[in-house]
Amino acid sequence: MPTPEHMTDVVHRYLAAINAGDMEAVMELFANNAAVEDPAGTEPKTGPAILTFYQNAFSGGAKVELTDSIRISAKTTAFPFRAAIGQADGKVLNVEVIDIFEFNEAGKVEKMTAHFGPANITMSEG
Amino acid sequence: MPTPEHMTDVVHRYLAAINAGDMEAVMELFANNAAVEDPAGTEPKTGPAILTFYQNAFSGGAKVELTDSIRISAKTTAFPFRAAIGQADGKVLNVEVIDIFEFNEAGKVEKMTAHFGPANITMSEG
Repeated sequence: MPTPEHMTDVVHRYLAAINAGDMEAVMELFANNAAVEDPAGTEPKTGPAILTFYQNAFSGGAKVELTDSIRISAKTTAFPFRAAIGQADGKVLNVEVIDIFEFNEAGKVEKMTAHFGPANITMSEG
Repeated sequence: MPTPEHMTDVVHRYLAAINAGDMEAVMELFANNAAVEDPAGTEPKTGPAILTFYQNAFSGGAKVELTDSIRISAKTTAFPFRAAIGQADGKVLNVEVIDIFEFNEAGKVEKMTAHFGPANITMSEG
């Protein structure tokens, strides 16, 4: 069973890896059989498609930061954050998201679900 | 498909009903086949057990309020809130929670999952 301390650490490492633009470090947090449902309600991505997804999503650089406390249950974390994501046209996409991480026994993220939609998105000048 | 406006309204009605101590009003937001997994990782409650659960949880009175924005995807909301729940001994249990509501086509909550654990709980004098 993953400990609360481990799960908290994984959330911080995830955000730090995105801020560093290090998508390989993001991948290290996921289980081999992980599924990424981003946004919630879409077909989950698996396998190599997960890395491609992260690379595409954050190719323009991103700054992410927690906006509220991490909620930690037995094998799951829920954490609210804000992402400012550079766009090809130089503008910045600002998204308020809540990610759910479901952990396996080995402490890897087996399922990620990202909750956000148009109501949580604003565009600003870069 | 439930609209973002409807799902937002349901979240506000849910919190208002808890603050009013009106658990029947909470029940009106749920589908007949709803499942309530509170906290995440426990066996979901269904049927009449849902009302009993809410009555027991909030029998000492509760004050709930959003602590961050509501994230709204296609058929799901995720919302961070704080609950201050009166205890039998007069103390107050403070819990930081993120609830996930999954909506059916009729706009009723079909699945509720509450994310929190010991790390999110503090006790204070009443």
